[in-house]
Amino acid sequence: MREAEFLQTLHFNSLRLADGSLVNMSVPIVLAIDDAQKHLIGDSKRVALFDSKGDPVAILNDIEIYKHPKEERIARTWGTTAPGLPYVEQTITNAGNWLIGGDLEVIGPIKYNDGLDHFRLSPAELRAEFTRRNADAVFAFQLRNPVHNGHALLMTDTRKRLLEMGYKNPVLLLHPLGGYTKADDVPLDWRMKQHEKVLEDGVLDPETTVVSIFPSPMHYAGPTEVQWHAKARINAGANFYIVGRDPAGMSHPVEKRDLYDADHGKKVLSMAPGLERLNILPFRVAAYDKTRGKMAFFDPSRPQDFLFISGTKMRTLARNKESPPDGFMCPGGWKVLVEYYDSLVPSSNGKVPEAVPA
Amino acid sequence: MREAEFLQTLHFNSLRLADGSLVNMSVPIVLAIDDAQKHLIGDSKRVALFDSKGDPVAILNDIEIYKHPKEERIARTWGTTAPGLPYVEQTITNAGNWLIGGDLEVIGPIKYNDGLDHFRLSPAELRAEFTRRNADAVFAFQLRNPVHNGHALLMTDTRKRLLEMGYKNPVLLLHPLGGYTKADDVPLDWRMKQHEKVLEDGVLDPETTVVSIFPSPMHYAGPTEVQWHAKARINAGANFYIVGRDPAGMSHPVEKRDLYDADHGKKVLSMAPGLERLNILPFRVAAYDKTRGKMAFFDPSRPQDFLFISGTKMRTLARNKESPPDGFMCPGGWKVLVEYYDSLVPSSNGKVPEAVPA
Repeated sequence: MREAEFLQTLHFNSLRLADGSLVNMSVPIVLAIDDAQKHLIGDSKRVALFDSKGDPVAILNDIEIYKHPKEERIARTWGTTAPGLPYVEQTITNAGNWLIGGDLEVIGPIKYNDGLDHFRLSPAELRAEFTRRNADAVFAFQLRNPVHNGHALLMTDTRKRLLEMGYKNPVLLLHPLGGYTKADDVPLDWRMKQHEKVLEDGVLDPETTVVSIFPSPMHYAGPTEVQWHAKARINAGANFYIVGRDPAGMSHPVEKRDLYDADHGKKVLSMAPGLERLNILPFRVAAYDKTRGKMAFFDPSRPQDFLFISGTKMRTLARNKESPPDGFMCPGGWKVLVEYYDSLVPSSNGKVPEAVPA
Repeated sequence: MREAEFLQTLHFNSLRLADGSLVNMSVPIVLAIDDAQKHLIGDSKRVALFDSKGDPVAILNDIEIYKHPKEERIARTWGTTAPGLPYVEQTITNAGNWLIGGDLEVIGPIKYNDGLDHFRLSPAELRAEFTRRNADAVFAFQLRNPVHNGHALLMTDTRKRLLEMGYKNPVLLLHPLGGYTKADDVPLDWRMKQHEKVLEDGVLDPETTVVSIFPSPMHYAGPTEVQWHAKARINAGANFYIVGRDPAGMSHPVEKRDLYDADHGKKVLSMAPGLERLNILPFRVAAYDKTRGKMAFFDPSRPQDFLFISGTKMRTLARNKESPPDGFMCPGGWKVLVEYYDSLVPSSNGKVPEAVPA
């Protein structure tokens, strides 16, 4: 991003195009450089960008270097400057004091060579895939966790609702986040194995499901980030977006509370400039119904029958090779999770202590 | 503000109207209540608002009470949560944990009974005044400090430029901020006396100048606040807005630097949603030209000839009954400033120490 785009992102969560229209853009996509790199660039008008192996991947033309106002960037993106925000500590705190923007010229498709590139479809490739499948509605589901039967219920119920609305062939874009996630989240390669099992076990229908990786880093920036999550999926051909409680949220890094109001994400998304075309499908809350032995939509008239199994709880069960209640997750998917935790070095008593939610 | 307006203000600096258009709104206008007040309101659908003397001034109908997310409000409005932000400490830190919004029904014009109410023209009254004067252009100047000859040069030069552009009768809206200002700023009543002297002394032409009070509190929120300053003046009939370096800025309350990049205010203003109709007139920098003995536009080819007299320096001179260089401010205006500081209790040696810029 150039500075004009960076400032519009921070202040307005949207960019004005040359024709006067607004597109949503809530999260800065910027490249930081330090004093030495700035000095090295000198008066050059363009720079090459290299991957971690030293191969060139893109050229940034007609460059512009401007100050990196870290505190302000953090405050306006996260609504807090408290220490302990995962993405901030990973990417911003130790980054350079300058940002470099320009016109990006990508040399070829970006490859990760991690065995998962076939899942990394570009927006154009996704749109072509939906056309190939004759989809007349595409609904997107953003996730960074293993798929349990509550998620699956939500996705199959959404398809049902779209059929009832008159669509003939609604297709699900199951779009797990593939960039940086915090240390206690399950890594991408294991999540992809788990998602494949969920399709193999028939929990989701492969005919009406496209699985692809969304190669963005997780910011945990709540109402600000959910706009980016939705906007990117519109670009990829989705016209319905499923949004739940506290999307992209986390616990406050310092205070004993959630960082964001659980309802703000949905509210902000529904009012965001540039997202007027998006149809938002609010989550119904799913939980484990003890009387029926399966995940079901929560019925507030009989709360005592329902068990809420948090991501933290799920991870702790899998780490300790304990089983969740029958019907919480398909057995094949659960096995992948247990294998993942088995692959980690265990603590001395063979049990992993419950993670502090972060 | 209701919560939907509050959230749009924080995230987008603009509100979407029923017809789909956007109006700029960068600063939350909210009313905080505490737990006891919330309890007292109970299920009531409307509340009366009273002034400090206990007289009712307005009714808030069809009310809505929602959480007051102070940290997030501060971070998204100021781009920092550092302690020591004047408006935050004055108005937010000790405020209640709830906000109350609704449909405001004002009982009558708000009176302050401080002898200055004749200066408090409503937007409709200002627009009527500009029509009465047959203004074909209105240019607004926001200030919270005494007017010196550098300001005056800027305003008279702006009028000259507008005449050159073909306008026949450009009128100046001199619109000093009348709400809360930080402790070391000169109080409103003394500033108004000073402004009157500036007109009496002929530094500004009363025929083409409307002086009115802008009854808003100063937030010192830089690029966020300058949008509010401009938007409010558009509502009052202005179509040109003069903006300088670092508008509504201040020093960082903790770090040794300005809180905002001096250029961000103008840049953000030029891109702000809902302010497309506004014509922004960038400040030329004025300083004291020692070779000519008067305020003049800074000439970068001979920097050694110019003296920059900051607001802090000006206040210190007036406090200590020292004179600024001839031609810095009209004598009548300067006398008012000296009288103001004379009216304060002096320190033991009769001199007031230089204020720490805040």
